[in-house]
Amino acid sequence: MLERLTVVGVGLIGGSLAGAVRAAGLAREVVGCGRGEENLRVALARGLLDRATRDPAAAVAGSELIVLAAPLGATAGLAEELRPHARAGTILTDVGSVKAPVVAALETRWQQVGPVVGAHPIAGSEAAGAAAARIDLFQGRRCILTPTAATDRVALARVRALWEGVGAHVEEMPASVHDVLLARVSHLPHLVAYALAAAGEGAVEGRRVLDYAGTGFRDATRIAGSPATLWSDIVLANAGQVTSALEGFRAALDRLERLLRAGDAAGLEAAFAGARALRRQIEGDE
Amino acid sequence: MLERLTVVGVGLIGGSLAGAVRAAGLAREVVGCGRGEENLRVALARGLLDRATRDPAAAVAGSELIVLAAPLGATAGLAEELRPHARAGTILTDVGSVKAPVVAALETRWQQVGPVVGAHPIAGSEAAGAAAARIDLFQGRRCILTPTAATDRVALARVRALWEGVGAHVEEMPASVHDVLLARVSHLPHLVAYALAAAGEGAVEGRRVLDYAGTGFRDATRIAGSPATLWSDIVLANAGQVTSALEGFRAALDRLERLLRAGDAAGLEAAFAGARALRRQIEGDE
Repeated sequence: MLERLTVVGVGLIGGSLAGAVRAAGLAREVVGCGRGEENLRVALARGLLDRATRDPAAAVAGSELIVLAAPLGATAGLAEELRPHARAGTILTDVGSVKAPVVAALETRWQQVGPVVGAHPIAGSEAAGAAAARIDLFQGRRCILTPTAATDRVALARVRALWEGVGAHVEEMPASVHDVLLARVSHLPHLVAYALAAAGEGAVEGRRVLDYAGTGFRDATRIAGSPATLWSDIVLANAGQVTSALEGFRAALDRLERLLRAGDAAGLEAAFAGARALRRQIEGDE
Repeated sequence: MLERLTVVGVGLIGGSLAGAVRAAGLAREVVGCGRGEENLRVALARGLLDRATRDPAAAVAGSELIVLAAPLGATAGLAEELRPHARAGTILTDVGSVKAPVVAALETRWQQVGPVVGAHPIAGSEAAGAAAARIDLFQGRRCILTPTAATDRVALARVRALWEGVGAHVEEMPASVHDVLLARVSHLPHLVAYALAAAGEGAVEGRRVLDYAGTGFRDATRIAGSPATLWSDIVLANAGQVTSALEGFRAALDRLERLLRAGDAAGLEAAFAGARALRRQIEGDE
């Protein structure tokens, strides 16, 4: 059991983790640190935290493990800010959707303090804030840890135990592999959903296009409801892999368009059937 | 009240309409006609129909109103097949996702029999068959009617009453306007979802890409689970409008990619925020 765990950024992921850690009794004290007073109040009222503070020094004092759960773009700056207040040996981990550049930045900033372990729970939604947190958010979900040559094995085991303790299936892989995989299944789909929502703007003969959206459009663009800053940070931090993933998507779309323009019913049906079979492979876990 | 209504194609839409008509007492007898014996058995067992038959002649004999709810590609052929068995004056309507070519084809084939009214309820999901039918499927949903210069006003009013009777909000517009709107909010998103699912094929360093899909990918590709034949028929029937919609989508995606490659954080965030605001406009009805 941890004596004190600090979660910096008590949003959907940070708030859910804090609440799950408390519920599972994995830490004697769970401290939440954030900028928004109202959000911290919600987190406290919902029982996600033992204590909340807006002061980084107070948040990390005496903490054994710090989880950075703020938006990706703020991660490196926060490590910098927390460093003078953390005690020697404090483990720093994160929940960022991009790993290679983030882990490298944290390792540089934290090397005088203690070990760094990169982590990314594959859970979440377009919702945001402590109000959206759920203590079962990670139950049965994957959490990817991305140890480097520099990663301390004991710290890695403790972070693994934390995620397993809140119900996640933990898997280790190189940060670079994580970033390729997530570009394809998460970052690219967000870009596509934003583009699809944007393409719905306007009217046809006085009728607003989006008024005719059915459940299909809603599903396909749901993640375009995700916070804009959060996602521009993510795709920019993984720009190389996202543009590669985009090439793959464009190739698939070009192929469908060629079949459509050629009026090739058999070819189009076969292409749709192939995509459908792929989609159905992941249906089981829903 | 109708004496006899015939639904040809007792799938998600046809089965839901049949059941809703029965539940609302809009017809004395609801007859279902389909090819699959097992599916008709399910429809009868679920109380969606008064009578089921695989024989088109028996299905339409004495019917006042025939609803074609078979896949789009089969619609014109079915009208041809039913024509010799329908009594004079029988109204023919459909539920197809593309209207201009379908209504024109039905008007040609039905002109010796009775009036034709094109209709499209905007409801449905990736599920299929009578087992997925729900009598509340059209409650609060739009149903678009696409009268032409040839459309009989009495027949139009009866089809309107049918859809209003099962809870739909009925709206009339030219078939060509319908086809532009639906290309943008429905046909294009299906094409994109199939492409996104297809682009998820393969593995990275021995790890299957789709194993890492979270809820975002699932939402964004859910409609790629839709029946392949149905959707290849739809996009091919509306190919001109779908390729135009695709151009709009590509322009939106190109713009996001340019911002991404330029590392333009402010521009990308603003573009995402704009798309998010559009997406949130339709959230209220969910």
